[in-house]
Amino acid sequence: MTLDAAAPARTRGTVRIVGTGLLGTSAALALTLRGVDVVLTDPSPTAVALARDLGAGRLAGPEDDPALVLVACPPDVVADVVADELEVFGAAVVTDVASVKGGPLKSLRAMGADLTRYVGSHPMAGRERSGAVAARTDLFAGRPWVIAPTEAVGPSALQAVRDLALDCGGVPVTMPAHEHDEAVALVSHAPQVAASLVAARLRDASEPAVGLAGQGLRDVTRIAGSDPALWSQILAGNAGPVADVLEALREDLEEVIGALRALATDSGAPGARGRLARAIADGGAGRDRIPGKHGSAPAVYATVLVVVPDRPGALGRLLTDVGEAGVNLEDLRLEHSEGQAVALASIDVVPAAADPLAQALRSRGWTVPR
Amino acid sequence: MTLDAAAPARTRGTVRIVGTGLLGTSAALALTLRGVDVVLTDPSPTAVALARDLGAGRLAGPEDDPALVLVACPPDVVADVVADELEVFGAAVVTDVASVKGGPLKSLRAMGADLTRYVGSHPMAGRERSGAVAARTDLFAGRPWVIAPTEAVGPSALQAVRDLALDCGGVPVTMPAHEHDEAVALVSHAPQVAASLVAARLRDASEPAVGLAGQGLRDVTRIAGSDPALWSQILAGNAGPVADVLEALREDLEEVIGALRALATDSGAPGARGRLARAIADGGAGRDRIPGKHGSAPAVYATVLVVVPDRPGALGRLLTDVGEAGVNLEDLRLEHSEGQAVALASIDVVPAAADPLAQALRSRGWTVPR
Repeated sequence: MTLDAAAPARTRGTVRIVGTGLLGTSAALALTLRGVDVVLTDPSPTAVALARDLGAGRLAGPEDDPALVLVACPPDVVADVVADELEVFGAAVVTDVASVKGGPLKSLRAMGADLTRYVGSHPMAGRERSGAVAARTDLFAGRPWVIAPTEAVGPSALQAVRDLALDCGGVPVTMPAHEHDEAVALVSHAPQVAASLVAARLRDASEPAVGLAGQGLRDVTRIAGSDPALWSQILAGNAGPVADVLEALREDLEEVIGALRALATDSGAPGARGRLARAIADGGAGRDRIPGKHGSAPAVYATVLVVVPDRPGALGRLLTDVGEAGVNLEDLRLEHSEGQAVALASIDVVPAAADPLAQALRSRGWTVPR
Repeated sequence: MTLDAAAPARTRGTVRIVGTGLLGTSAALALTLRGVDVVLTDPSPTAVALARDLGAGRLAGPEDDPALVLVACPPDVVADVVADELEVFGAAVVTDVASVKGGPLKSLRAMGADLTRYVGSHPMAGRERSGAVAARTDLFAGRPWVIAPTEAVGPSALQAVRDLALDCGGVPVTMPAHEHDEAVALVSHAPQVAASLVAARLRDASEPAVGLAGQGLRDVTRIAGSDPALWSQILAGNAGPVADVLEALREDLEEVIGALRALATDSGAPGARGRLARAIADGGAGRDRIPGKHGSAPAVYATVLVVVPDRPGALGRLLTDVGEAGVNLEDLRLEHSEGQAVALASIDVVPAAADPLAQALRSRGWTVPR
């Protein structure tokens, strides 16, 4: 997905980016691309110079008068930095992109910060690589950008942060800070812990044992390569909600372990196999809740499989027959491996059309396995 | 990866395939492709007819005299079927492809089966789709094929099963049944449970919460879509080893929950952040043990990042300079997003060459971020 660079920026005035890591520099690049005046600052002179060299904006100076400040620094210092920026730039709206929202807000309240000009936010975007060098203009394109306003905030401040999210290509999603923190505990922080714990079990495995690893294990543990320093901050910052999710998971785990121990003693242990099947089935039901790749609801088509002879024109005849059956084909995949005399066509259609299509194709002589 | 169809088959005589699901039919297709005489049988006449129509072999008949029998049926009946085949074909070597090896072996011993002709095996291959229609000649190509012989087995029987694995394109790996079962508990069965339990937590999530899901969650939970009936059999069949792995995982989980609860009460709780960081770091160390996609050890190259101006000839100059630095380039990736005045080149080299290359490029005027 790319940004529509031609669309005019909604953001008015200068944007000050505090912290030129992956997120700060990516936002700066996207805003600069749209013609927004961006000034950059970072505790590291090397980091900010690199971001400037990448075309993310100009170096911040004492004469800057930003309308909006974006704080993109590590989670454990975000509240202090936001408070400073609110203080120094007494007319600016300040937002941050930290992955936890409740803790910083609580700290800001305790510090007596001006919450009429602060709107916390969290773009759901990232990469395995960090730093300005990994920044991309399209990092946020099409990704949810959570905006977590308090009741204290004014409508124009809220609009300014929504505009910023839109100018970066993000999709603004408004929810209260505590709801955000519970949501990311569920969809991001607890899954990170689970992936890391599964992967940690492999440390002492024998060479032949890890040699049996397949794609499933690689998928489950891909994010286990994440940065321990950053993630201990994120987890510590969202400790309560993450613990809630992990405790529920532990209860389910206890049930599975109990069923397995019962079966290890007595392979006919009553109810134990059912508990295992339910654990897997519940996982499937949860998995089905995850939206599709581009944030849309998952498309639920039915698939009709058809055996297609490896002969010229066979696929053309199949498509003609599908058309004559009056069925709208949503997707077609053809699979053929070396030396097989037939290929396998997978035809995706709306569920109601699957049975009629299968019957129509069988009546025209096609092999449609039941 | 494809099979080398031209290589002559090692397997001698007729191979009888019992069970024409995904694994049985795929093995039959690979063997038929190499010219081996394959006969097919399955409790379902439709299933076996489909496998024959797919070109997997001919229907089994009373006059068959197989040299080798491959049992590819559900795990809960595999021991009974293997015992029957050993009985009926008194000269044949019998193997099976069930994903658990200790339990069936124990049952066969209890039944007094002729273990001089039985060699359990388990090809580490599969697909999300099941049945003969999903079969592929190259399903096993390059994948480990575990062979778990007992001390009772004769050398020619063992060789016959190794030859079968090789003819199917697999890579034979010999290990005792209990070692196999512990290994798959670790790299396959426990990760399946973890993925399912993480996904199950999403069932009651709000729409906005699941809307924040990203690629990380999709990866962790991909295998949660697995078949509950099959997986409850697999887990029940390997209950002890899977419970051992999950209990160790539960201990780690307790530690993480303890640290989170401590931090939720007191954000400065001594040692708690360190425990979280260690959990993530341990996961990274475990993740590093997983071999690369094609079963080779993971290639550990160092990456040198270079900022490349978006001007004609710039990349050519860079490659020339890399060559003149006397460094062998292992891989190059170029990343450029819309509207950025520069691209970012990632150059993979052997670790010892990374620093010298970075210095050489800097001295030639390139921006190489530290």
